[in-house]
Amino acid sequence: MLACRRSVVRLSSGRKFTSCLDDSSRWRRHSSTGMCLEYSRNGDPEKVVVMKETTLPVPTGNQVLMKMLAAPVNPADINTIQGVYAVQPSLPSIPGNEGVGEVMAVGDECGEILQPGDWVIPRVNAMGTWRTHIVAPHTDLIKVPSNADMVTAATIAVNPGTAYRMLKDFVPMSSGDTVIQNGANSAVGQAVIQIAAALGINTINVVRNRPNIHQLKDYLTRLGATVVVTEEELRKSESVKALPPPRLALNCVSGRSGTEILRQLAHGGVMVTYGGMSRQPVIGPVGSLIFSDVTLRGFWMTRWNKEHFNDSERQQMVDDLFQLAQSGKLKPPDNTLVPFADYIVALKNAMPKEGMLGKKQILLF
Amino acid sequence: MLACRRSVVRLSSGRKFTSCLDDSSRWRRHSSTGMCLEYSRNGDPEKVVVMKETTLPVPTGNQVLMKMLAAPVNPADINTIQGVYAVQPSLPSIPGNEGVGEVMAVGDECGEILQPGDWVIPRVNAMGTWRTHIVAPHTDLIKVPSNADMVTAATIAVNPGTAYRMLKDFVPMSSGDTVIQNGANSAVGQAVIQIAAALGINTINVVRNRPNIHQLKDYLTRLGATVVVTEEELRKSESVKALPPPRLALNCVSGRSGTEILRQLAHGGVMVTYGGMSRQPVIGPVGSLIFSDVTLRGFWMTRWNKEHFNDSERQQMVDDLFQLAQSGKLKPPDNTLVPFADYIVALKNAMPKEGMLGKKQILLF
Repeated sequence: MLACRRSVVRLSSGRKFTSCLDDSSRWRRHSSTGMCLEYSRNGDPEKVVVMKETTLPVPTGNQVLMKMLAAPVNPADINTIQGVYAVQPSLPSIPGNEGVGEVMAVGDECGEILQPGDWVIPRVNAMGTWRTHIVAPHTDLIKVPSNADMVTAATIAVNPGTAYRMLKDFVPMSSGDTVIQNGANSAVGQAVIQIAAALGINTINVVRNRPNIHQLKDYLTRLGATVVVTEEELRKSESVKALPPPRLALNCVSGRSGTEILRQLAHGGVMVTYGGMSRQPVIGPVGSLIFSDVTLRGFWMTRWNKEHFNDSERQQMVDDLFQLAQSGKLKPPDNTLVPFADYIVALKNAMPKEGMLGKKQILLF
Repeated sequence: MLACRRSVVRLSSGRKFTSCLDDSSRWRRHSSTGMCLEYSRNGDPEKVVVMKETTLPVPTGNQVLMKMLAAPVNPADINTIQGVYAVQPSLPSIPGNEGVGEVMAVGDECGEILQPGDWVIPRVNAMGTWRTHIVAPHTDLIKVPSNADMVTAATIAVNPGTAYRMLKDFVPMSSGDTVIQNGANSAVGQAVIQIAAALGINTINVVRNRPNIHQLKDYLTRLGATVVVTEEELRKSESVKALPPPRLALNCVSGRSGTEILRQLAHGGVMVTYGGMSRQPVIGPVGSLIFSDVTLRGFWMTRWNKEHFNDSERQQMVDDLFQLAQSGKLKPPDNTLVPFADYIVALKNAMPKEGMLGKKQILLF
């Protein structure tokens, strides 16, 4: 069992949470160790991930010591632990690709770049955010507004980032245009709905039928969805037909579902695939490619981040996303907060049930 | 039965052929009628296509009277007659999308643009080239060298045009780069091999296994193919592995064959689909799209021609292709010459046998 001291963390959403370990002001006096999750072999996350104590070096030079505040469990994290993701770290490895932390101490070469109290998110991929403290060069971190909602800050980079780029980089979209997506209730899907709504872009949102489908439709509609339909309803929906044909399709399901949204594309449209939840390939009718001039592309946030590691486009994206969040136009995905000590619960709940993902699991430190 | 007078046509390749109907110099004295093929309903080409006599108007204004010399039977012609092509003409319709003709007479507004004796190919789609004579505005025709090989001129627009554009418009290719294609023995495939060879581009040519595969491999190698492999040999071929990974894949088969050549693409490569001979869709592994950043596109010569109806890019393409042909670097596809009166034989031989196309059937008038 993990022994940890607890303190109350205030979320800007007004929720309170009792956190493990020290708060930042007491770090130097009380603690030079932290806790991390780690796995030494690929497999079922609940079985292979263990919690360990780590020693924290004092930051020197360009290094920063940050205390993690919150970190999500994303599907890519699960797939990496399972060993089925495209990129595999050397083992043992600390999981976690994103999250938000608070700077506690800085080395003498950090100058004015980062100060204790600043909030930061990873600039690099696979930083290993599932731990209470990280020591990293300041060049590996991006400063974000420290008055942001904590869960928003912890989850803004990967999924809203993916949504933002897919809406921006493939087809010139403007107010009144239409985008169609499947898996519309995924974290990316929810961000697509909100960012598109903020830009005046119509969204056709395809979800799988399920018990209480109306609750899901209501939820996505409240987020700003123009139309929400099940896969069965898509072809005959009058609301879909009433919109301008979509010039962009966003596909995280692939298989038949991907083909269905591809068929809705306007002439010359683009389908961007960013996931394959059906475990089926992308299936493109020959006629769609030849005669409708549809293009099939893929998007991977990790690659984009590497190619834009520290450029103005990336900073603009972070600024835009936080501005949307702080003006209330971009909410974090429907989520459950899980104390770090209960990480097993978070891992369990992050596994797809009958092929469907539940609420986003957020580890709180 | 067709009653026709015959005259000897000399092909620049040295072959001779006895042609139906008058040669051009005698047209005004002997004939104001011609013969055409026509179909009034979709179906089996051998059953629905009939030969009819047509009256030829005297060209006036901007019109040109041309006597057809040769016209191929392309798969798109067959599919159009069958009623399974993407674009369907109103019926009755004269089939035939390409061919070469000789100008016999011009209207008084044609000025210096075209003269009797000039050779022309259609600028428009679906001109209906399967007839002895055509009267059309000079704006619907492209003048080509009248000293070209007749079969080359008759077949240069659709298939070598497709090959030329696919090599030019999707990925910047230069000498030493590699392109991979399936259906490499198709008319487009043969043109790809030759145009690529002229540009110093390596070609990996995938064909289906068949009796006498070595004859086909030899034939394609003599055309300039770098490597010729069967679908079964592709994955393990050392000759394939020795080449730079292809940045461009050209797919006329789709289904599994398309997926196999897609898997050979370099990171960021493009697969262009221009056919679906397997009658299967294009199947793209999700990982190829997301992690290998592969793009799937389509190409349709008809659309390109419409979008570049009379621009310098199109003229450049025609000039380049005839220059390649006249320097011996671009030969017409392996073909059989069929007298127009025997069109039924040409239609029969143009149908795929066990899914494989035989020699290109060329109607001679």
